[in-house]
Amino acid sequence: MSELTIWTLDWVPEGPRGFVRDLRLRWACEEAGLGYAVRTIRFEDRETNHLAQQPFGQVPFLKDGELEMFESGAGLLHLARKSDKLMPRDPVGEAETLQWTIAALNSIEMVSVPWWFLNISGDEDNGLTGWMGKRLEHMERVLSEQEWLAAGRFTVADLLMADVLRVSKVRAFGDRPATEAYVTRATARPAFEKARADQIAHFAAADQKRAEAR
Amino acid sequence: MSELTIWTLDWVPEGPRGFVRDLRLRWACEEAGLGYAVRTIRFEDRETNHLAQQPFGQVPFLKDGELEMFESGAGLLHLARKSDKLMPRDPVGEAETLQWTIAALNSIEMVSVPWWFLNISGDEDNGLTGWMGKRLEHMERVLSEQEWLAAGRFTVADLLMADVLRVSKVRAFGDRPATEAYVTRATARPAFEKARADQIAHFAAADQKRAEAR
Repeated sequence: MSELTIWTLDWVPEGPRGFVRDLRLRWACEEAGLGYAVRTIRFEDRETNHLAQQPFGQVPFLKDGELEMFESGAGLLHLARKSDKLMPRDPVGEAETLQWTIAALNSIEMVSVPWWFLNISGDEDNGLTGWMGKRLEHMERVLSEQEWLAAGRFTVADLLMADVLRVSKVRAFGDRPATEAYVTRATARPAFEKARADQIAHFAAADQKRAEAR
Repeated sequence: MSELTIWTLDWVPEGPRGFVRDLRLRWACEEAGLGYAVRTIRFEDRETNHLAQQPFGQVPFLKDGELEMFESGAGLLHLARKSDKLMPRDPVGEAETLQWTIAALNSIEMVSVPWWFLNISGDEDNGLTGWMGKRLEHMERVLSEQEWLAAGRFTVADLLMADVLRVSKVRAFGDRPATEAYVTRATARPAFEKARADQIAHFAAADQKRAEAR
């Protein structure tokens, strides 16, 4: 039995399938060749039914032997210590990977997720649009000069940044050819394709069970 | 001469003094007893004058010998490896510190900074207010049950979370006594007080130089 367990929801509607954040941890394990099990908590009352495991009522969280950890970004950095396929071991490569991992979480996603949230809530051109444009423009410049973000190779920073940038509405924000090529490049990796297909199959299988339970 | 260099702006207006994010790195160094130098880039054209050092035109960035690193969160995790005062060395304590550091960046600040931005842009009760309230309520519950976030002691996760929560408008969001006590407790630490006073003195000294240059 695998020591690594990725916890996610037992079911979600079709919209978020392929985007729930357990995909980040699945993808990392697939890249690194780490075995893992997937376990679930109930979709119903999801905002309050697992606060002891995840204080904001979110998924995923990761179990590694006696360790338990929430926040997909923390899980990724934890997994990255297990395999140099995710993060190089030389100090410069490691520092670059760390800074770009945090940049994905705190410089891009800190703008793109709230912008997306306001956008899908009906406020399409919202008060974050200008800020969003600037951040994505900076990323476009960076990505027009390099294939991957850190250490001249694919790392966990690319896994996370590509997952942030591949969100449909973010991807459609302006014409940014280098970013589009980067997202295409990252999501063409077999490890991503497997993680995505597995997540979609996981939630689709639950449709059947839910139908039978009725 | 110190090997650690914290880069920040040479000057900012009075409003952000005491809040510019180099304070996070100063505070961490003070907690850990690590020596550091402070160097500056020009406030003028700050969004574009140091893109080679910081691709989003932000401060701070950190230099540690041959390593250069942007993103205050990455700098904090880097400094945390140098001192167990910032992060315990046992696997469980380390995992808890990592998850709460990322939670400050990606579960709280991802909502609180855009909410604050919309708020100060004139949209006081904005589309993020409901989400903000939920996240802060979750934090209030956590902080009503424990003094510090990880490993039963002050860590870099508290340093970051307290810095996120002490922003005036965030602090004034609703009545959250456990959070208020936590912010008060964290910011009463001598290392915070020194870091804050040093930052304010740094920017105030530049007022004089700017006046002379005119």
